[in-house]
Amino acid sequence: MQAPRVIAFDADDTLWHNETVFARAHEQYRELLSHYHDIDTVDRILFATEMRNLRLYGYGVKGYTLSAIETAIELTEGKISSEEISLLLQRGREMIDHPVELLDHVTPTLNALSPQFELWLITKGDLHHQQSKLDRSGLIKQFQTIEIVAEKNASVYANILRRHNCAPEEFLMVGNSMKSDILPVLSLGASAVYVPFHLTWEHERTDEKPEAPDRYHKLDHLGELPGLLDRNI
Amino acid sequence: MQAPRVIAFDADDTLWHNETVFARAHEQYRELLSHYHDIDTVDRILFATEMRNLRLYGYGVKGYTLSAIETAIELTEGKISSEEISLLLQRGREMIDHPVELLDHVTPTLNALSPQFELWLITKGDLHHQQSKLDRSGLIKQFQTIEIVAEKNASVYANILRRHNCAPEEFLMVGNSMKSDILPVLSLGASAVYVPFHLTWEHERTDEKPEAPDRYHKLDHLGELPGLLDRNI
Repeated sequence: MQAPRVIAFDADDTLWHNETVFARAHEQYRELLSHYHDIDTVDRILFATEMRNLRLYGYGVKGYTLSAIETAIELTEGKISSEEISLLLQRGREMIDHPVELLDHVTPTLNALSPQFELWLITKGDLHHQQSKLDRSGLIKQFQTIEIVAEKNASVYANILRRHNCAPEEFLMVGNSMKSDILPVLSLGASAVYVPFHLTWEHERTDEKPEAPDRYHKLDHLGELPGLLDRNI
Repeated sequence: MQAPRVIAFDADDTLWHNETVFARAHEQYRELLSHYHDIDTVDRILFATEMRNLRLYGYGVKGYTLSAIETAIELTEGKISSEEISLLLQRGREMIDHPVELLDHVTPTLNALSPQFELWLITKGDLHHQQSKLDRSGLIKQFQTIEIVAEKNASVYANILRRHNCAPEEFLMVGNSMKSDILPVLSLGASAVYVPFHLTWEHERTDEKPEAPDRYHKLDHLGELPGLLDRNI
C-alpha cells in the first residue's frame, strides 16, 4: 500500500452506531405486525417497499418511517389503527433524536492519525440527520473535509477527489460497507480498509470481492488502523 | 454595487417551481380535513407540527409528509382512515416525483451571465431531492459550484465563501427568500438581489428589511438581472 496523504472515514457503523438503532426499531416493527404476519413476510415486504421508494426517498430515517407506515397499511389490509401509525411516527422521531454512540477505538484512532494524515469524512444519507449526528459526535474538528453525499459510487468519489485535488494514489477510504466504501474506491485505483460491523443492512450486502490485494486490507476494528499503516507504508 | 466575480443562485422558487407544488398539496390536505376543521385550524396546527419537527426532520417533502400524517391523526382524533393516510403517502411521493418546471427567464439569464461570471448554486433542503431536481432541471452544467446545505445562515455562507476562496466583495447571491438568501449574505458584506416569488412559505417570511442600499437590489423577475448588472457595475 502506498502512503496515503488523505484518510477518509465513513460515518454510520464506522465511527458511530447506526444499524443498531435501525435493528432495534425493526424488532419493534416486527412485534407490531406479529398478529398479522410472520417475521419473514414482514421483513420481505418492508424491504421491497424500501427498495421501491429508494429512488424517491433516498437513504435515512424519514424514508424508512414513510416506507414502514406504507408497508404496515398494506400488510394489515388497512386494519392498522391510527394509534399504531402514531407510534411508528414517534419511533421515527426517536431514531433521529437517538444519542450518537461512538464505536470503540474511534477517538484514540483519529487522535493517533491526525498529526500525520489529512482526515476526511465521507458519509451518505440524509443531510440534516448526518449533520446533526456529526455535530453531536464531538468529532467535527478532527476532519478537514466533510462530504455528505446522496450516494457513494465511483463517480461520486472521483468527483470529490477531483474537487479537492487529491490523486487516487494519495487516498485511503475506511468503512464498513464493501459496496459503498471499498469497491468503488478500489476501482479508482485508491486504497481501502474494510472494517465490517456486525450488522449490515441488506441493501449494502454484496457478494463481490475486492480484487486489489496490494491496495485492500480488512481489519477487526478501527483500533488496528494505525498499526496497519505503520507496517504497510 | 461592486462587480461580482461569483453569482450564486438559490434553486427552489428562484430557478424552478417549488411552493406551487406544496401549495397544491396543501389545498388537497385542507380538503381532506374539511369535514373535521376549518381551514385556519388546519393551517395553524400543521404549521405548528412542522415547526416542532423541523429540528428533527429538516426541510423537504419527506418531513412535510410525516408532519402532515401526524397532524391529520391529531386533528381527526384518530378517526382518519388508513386509506386516507395511504393517500397522504402517495401525494408525498408524487410531490417528490413532480416534474421540475423552470421559472420564466431562467435559461436565457444563465446563458447571458455565464461567459462573464462564475455561476454557483446554493440551495437548502433535502439532499436527495435537491440533487434529483437539479439532475432533471438540465441546468447542472451551468454551475461551477453546487452547494446543497441543511440551513442557510450567515455562518453557512461564510463557510462556503472561505472554502472556495471567495471574498464577500466578490460575491452576489440571487434568491427569493429575504430570510435565507438576502439578509445573511448582506450581513457578511456581500451583495444580494431579491427576486420574490408570488408564494412564500410562512417559515421563510420576515419583517426584517435589508439595510445596505448599495449592495441590495430587488427585481420583478430573473430576466432583469443582466440589465441590472450592466447598469450598476
